[in-house]
Amino acid sequence: MASLEQKASEWSGVDPKDAVAVDEINLFQKLGLQTFINLSTNFYNRVYDDEEEWFRSIFSNSNKEEAIRNQYEFFVQRMGGPNLYSQRKGHTALIGRHRTFPVTHKAAERWLHHMQQALDSAADIDEDSKTKMINFFRHTAFFLVAGVELKNQNKGTGCKNCSHHH
Amino acid sequence: MASLEQKASEWSGVDPKDAVAVDEINLFQKLGLQTFINLSTNFYNRVYDDEEEWFRSIFSNSNKEEAIRNQYEFFVQRMGGPNLYSQRKGHTALIGRHRTFPVTHKAAERWLHHMQQALDSAADIDEDSKTKMINFFRHTAFFLVAGVELKNQNKGTGCKNCSHHH
Repeated sequence: MASLEQKASEWSGVDPKDAVAVDEINLFQKLGLQTFINLSTNFYNRVYDDEEEWFRSIFSNSNKEEAIRNQYEFFVQRMGGPNLYSQRKGHTALIGRHRTFPVTHKAAERWLHHMQQALDSAADIDEDSKTKMINFFRHTAFFLVAGVELKNQNKGTGCKNCSHHH
Repeated sequence: MASLEQKASEWSGVDPKDAVAVDEINLFQKLGLQTFINLSTNFYNRVYDDEEEWFRSIFSNSNKEEAIRNQYEFFVQRMGGPNLYSQRKGHTALIGRHRTFPVTHKAAERWLHHMQQALDSAADIDEDSKTKMINFFRHTAFFLVAGVELKNQNKGTGCKNCSHHH
């Protein structure tokens, strides 16, 4: 699994130690639940209104309110708060839960573009927390890109009897 | 993803609400770090000494001390303690991290057999905590079985140009 983290660091440009800086302080205690709800609402408003149809369409089969809740409950759980996500939905299983989405490099960058805008407009988050969070998000986005690429590689090896190349 | 949880409940025989009973109390605060270290050490001693070679061999490429640490750090993180696993290794990514292991129904039952024995011999864990933990472990084991089966299905659809059946 080391290679997933290595790829995530290489592609995101985020040093591993910066990616886990979200653990240096308890961001949930510092920011509170409502701040996380606001951030995810702001983020998904941008995603569902994206002028780029290819990205917007990735979410067209997902319920917006559900997407918002899934996201802020995961962030709260990961950033020092109660296990809201796991108590409601079970394991976070980050790669597994994204398996049906086309998590490409381009999609990761678009996701991060909207999250950066959402953070920029969040008056209730201080600059230091914003830096910690965007590094975590950037590293995580490319961790998922690496996980999806690996899944596709596995498809290839699962098809070793085929004469054509995948 | 609902189907993974549904399969996990069906195959494990554990009701979803019993599977998340680990969240009713903070088991880390109740039991303490050393209890989790003891449990994982006891568990992997049994696994690496398993008389059933097919199961023992699943772990032959893994370092035992590393396996113990990965496990108790994940348990601590999931059961109310600090994010030890994520701080050291990044996302828990439960399905992704097990992708190279043959997580079959039979392997899940053997894993659970050893964990039940390890729990039975743990004098430092009370009966109520043991019940909560084994339900969580049972449900999680079959959640992983379901995740692995899904991955294999994906391999099939990724190979749609092949004339032979996978």
